[in-house]
Amino acid sequence: MGSMEPLVIAGTSFRSRLIVGTGKYKDGAETKAAVEASGAEMVTVAVRRVNLDRSKESLLDFLDPKKLFLLPNTAGCYTAEEAIRAARLGREVGLSDWVKIEVIGDQATLYPDVQATLEATKVLVKEGFTVLPYTTEDIVFAKRLIDVGAAAVMPLGAPIGTGLGLQNITGLRILRELITEVPLIVDAGVGTASDAALAMELGFDAVLMNTAIALADDPILMAEAMRHAVIGGYQARLAGRMPRKLYASASSPMEGISR
Amino acid sequence: MGSMEPLVIAGTSFRSRLIVGTGKYKDGAETKAAVEASGAEMVTVAVRRVNLDRSKESLLDFLDPKKLFLLPNTAGCYTAEEAIRAARLGREVGLSDWVKIEVIGDQATLYPDVQATLEATKVLVKEGFTVLPYTTEDIVFAKRLIDVGAAAVMPLGAPIGTGLGLQNITGLRILRELITEVPLIVDAGVGTASDAALAMELGFDAVLMNTAIALADDPILMAEAMRHAVIGGYQARLAGRMPRKLYASASSPMEGISR
Amino acid sequence: MGSMEPLVIAGTSFRSRLIVGTGKYKDGAETKAAVEASGAEMVTVAVRRVNLDRSKESLLDFLDPKKLFLLPNTAGCYTAEEAIRAARLGREVGLSDWVKIEVIGDQATLYPDVQATLEATKVLVKEGFTVLPYTTEDIVFAKRLIDVGAAAVMPLGAPIGTGLGLQNITGLRILRELITEVPLIVDAGVGTASDAALAMELGFDAVLMNTAIALADDPILMAEAMRHAVIGGYQARLAGRMPRKLYASASSPMEGISR
Amino acid sequence: MGSMEPLVIAGTSFRSRLIVGTGKYKDGAETKAAVEASGAEMVTVAVRRVNLDRSKESLLDFLDPKKLFLLPNTAGCYTAEEAIRAARLGREVGLSDWVKIEVIGDQATLYPDVQATLEATKVLVKEGFTVLPYTTEDIVFAKRLIDVGAAAVMPLGAPIGTGLGLQNITGLRILRELITEVPLIVDAGVGTASDAALAMELGFDAVLMNTAIALADDPILMAEAMRHAVIGGYQARLAGRMPRKLYASASSPMEGISR
Repeated sequence: MGSMEPLVIAGTSFRSRLIVGTGKYKDGAETKAAVEASGAEMVTVAVRRVNLDRSKESLLDFLDPKKLFLLPNTAGCYTAEEAIRAARLGREVGLSDWVKIEVIGDQATLYPDVQATLEATKVLVKEGFTVLPYTTEDIVFAKRLIDVGAAAVMPLGAPIGTGLGLQNITGLRILRELITEVPLIVDAGVGTASDAALAMELGFDAVLMNTAIALADDPILMAEAMRHAVIGGYQARLAGRMPRKLYASASSPMEGISR
Repeated sequence: MGSMEPLVIAGTSFRSRLIVGTGKYKDGAETKAAVEASGAEMVTVAVRRVNLDRSKESLLDFLDPKKLFLLPNTAGCYTAEEAIRAARLGREVGLSDWVKIEVIGDQATLYPDVQATLEATKVLVKEGFTVLPYTTEDIVFAKRLIDVGAAAVMPLGAPIGTGLGLQNITGLRILRELITEVPLIVDAGVGTASDAALAMELGFDAVLMNTAIALADDPILMAEAMRHAVIGGYQARLAGRMPRKLYASASSPMEGISR
Repeated sequence: MGSMEPLVIAGTSFRSRLIVGTGKYKDGAETKAAVEASGAEMVTVAVRRVNLDRSKESLLDFLDPKKLFLLPNTAGCYTAEEAIRAARLGREVGLSDWVKIEVIGDQATLYPDVQATLEATKVLVKEGFTVLPYTTEDIVFAKRLIDVGAAAVMPLGAPIGTGLGLQNITGLRILRELITEVPLIVDAGVGTASDAALAMELGFDAVLMNTAIALADDPILMAEAMRHAVIGGYQARLAGRMPRKLYASASSPMEGISR
Repeated sequence: MGSMEPLVIAGTSFRSRLIVGTGKYKDGAETKAAVEASGAEMVTVAVRRVNLDRSKESLLDFLDPKKLFLLPNTAGCYTAEEAIRAARLGREVGLSDWVKIEVIGDQATLYPDVQATLEATKVLVKEGFTVLPYTTEDIVFAKRLIDVGAAAVMPLGAPIGTGLGLQNITGLRILRELITEVPLIVDAGVGTASDAALAMELGFDAVLMNTAIALADDPILMAEAMRHAVIGGYQARLAGRMPRKLYASASSPMEGISR
């Protein structure tokens, strides 16, 4: 794996381009084992779900902050204000001054509220946070997020918890083509290894996932699968794939196919 | 990678589920480096293209038969007779009594002639060969190949040299669902890492490729990418993926989607 | 075509479920002929592009307001204010108190600014307009548009002028499943007849297109093609399609496949 | 519909490019109504399933041979010999000297036996039949069928009775690009209107279907839908679709995308 360039977000380097969540696991031990198998260095933790006073067993007991970069997220927040409060709380208890902003706008689909996300990002960047917003493939809001100081843009591949894989490949390709200022990370929607590989092949800088690993029949093995898939997709992108043709002796290559 | 079951073909075990060809490389050194990076244990060599008398430099000088399992193939043959002769020649010069049968039926597309493939398979099995035929997703011929003793069935994912990825996922799924007697190997059509991962996720036992690696801008790196992708796809299959839903709170999972 | 239910928007009935634009044609005569061939009853006209004083030849000379329902649109507007002004202008000159709101947020891709679209919709509904906003597949904004009084929701199938067909079928299906208060109309992205048929099969109430017809080699014939495709897709939806199976004797149908 | 060129098979012209089967309907009256609604001129009837002596009610009582061109098919045959016998029987009882050859090679999937199909075609062409063979997307066998005198080549879009739509678009495109001697007709696999439109847009000369209409909730309405879809797809092909772009201002069009 010497052929992996580090992922750099806001000046910080990460060896792995797979970022994993810590929700939906059976227990802390399974969470820990899956995180290790994934090879992820950055791990998200929901501020609202960890036992922050740590008087009793907490998710944090299973995540070694010397080895892992903990990224608090605002899962469960439905307004900019809630997300801002959650971010501040994460910083106050010493978790991090980085935050993944997630503001849900629709309870049925967990689709993000991009406007509230933008507002929260703006406020928190001014307060010195390094903000990684979860958003959609909306290029207009992606640019606005960058304008207000987002350290990365993290569009969904499909709605949270669906496992459908990348649904709007054209939208993702447009983001990749037009956004070069900050890392682009597919966040949500990945269901299996090939989805993660495809995201990397499209040129995304990293992939963030939770349910695909946690709700697999064997989360540890799926975590290992995802580790390989992200490396494979990343290397394939770097390696420069062969041209596509309708058939081998066709005179002209086929261009512009999403996959 | 302790979680990889060995691939067993005709009683022989292979650690890697990636099989690679040796054509189209710049030179022998690049071939050797790509094969090593791929982690493949089984490697195909075209009987008609190797310098069999080995009085001068040969592809075989770069492939260590102690580490690699060389599988002669009949690339370049257009009739059953030519393929049979090539197989026999491969055995006579000590290459192997295994053979990948490839009989091309259409020069423009390199599409296989399944009828001639079946004939050659039948003859060679009777002569004691272990025969791995390259074929299409035609379930009728796949069953006939098994009936005459093929040691595996190797349908194309897309025509040779196109890099289009798996084109007829329904056909491949039908093969996987109805064929359990011998290993099923996707042979041809893979263009990038996610294609290989997808083939494994569909339940194929292995993937055979050549052009996708050899004609990448950086073949060595693409070989490494494919190694990861095959492992990732295989592990994801074993790990049991999460159910798909249209949205997270949808009451029923979505079934039967190819990918 | 007795089997077509009328499309009802804000209490007004339309016989055709195909809505067409009037931009990008060679001349007024071609526009007129294409509109007629399409069978469309509702036709969009860009307020900023028609010659409103009509002292010289105008697009409006070719569109008979007795036969056609002219829907002014705010094409070319980049802010809510511009769109609001354009809508008011369209009403003042007697065009209509209906308006298709289109606020572009990104010049490269012509992707809509959903926030500005929402603001313009809110203002114009209060002023008595019947507002049909062009938007994305964002379910959060779709619901907000309805909350402020939009008479329909018109998500893009793909970015304007791309002809890529429906790119985010999952997003469109979610909209269809969760939105029942107002008509849903695919607006932009259709490239050919099957795209339009598919939109109707997904349950959309109508399809709006311009480039696919105007920039076909033969716009008049493409208009006729689209007329048939929209009717075919609509009838197929109503007729209730056969269940899908992996193969005919498979014991269980396949559910949830987008197409 | 003045813009429809007639479909010409073996010198005979047909106004409609939709060919429909007559199996799986509730009764003769429904069959008749669906055929009429489809606008089809050529209609297939299974030789083995019609009551040929016509002493009692027969499917043929509902199909007016003055208006419809009856094409006997060999549905239910599993060998070349059975198919040949069925074809001869159809001619003997005065049905037709045309025949659609269908030889099933796999009972579970109803996948055709292309080798037996080729043999039956060869024999029957010599006996003066006009033979339309049902086959796969195998280009090698497609060319052999033409070589022995087939009047058309009719590849499956998906296995019979599955309704999955066109599964191997690359294979179908290759057929269309390389076969120009005889009409190409998609036979089997269509599930809904957009599938039929797509087949025509790919350049196929006609579409043959049965289950998609007969097993729709409302077969008559689905027949009408398919009539429109085939016309729409055909006209769209003729009209010359707009170029695809990733976004409107992208400098180069996207080529070679299947759909």
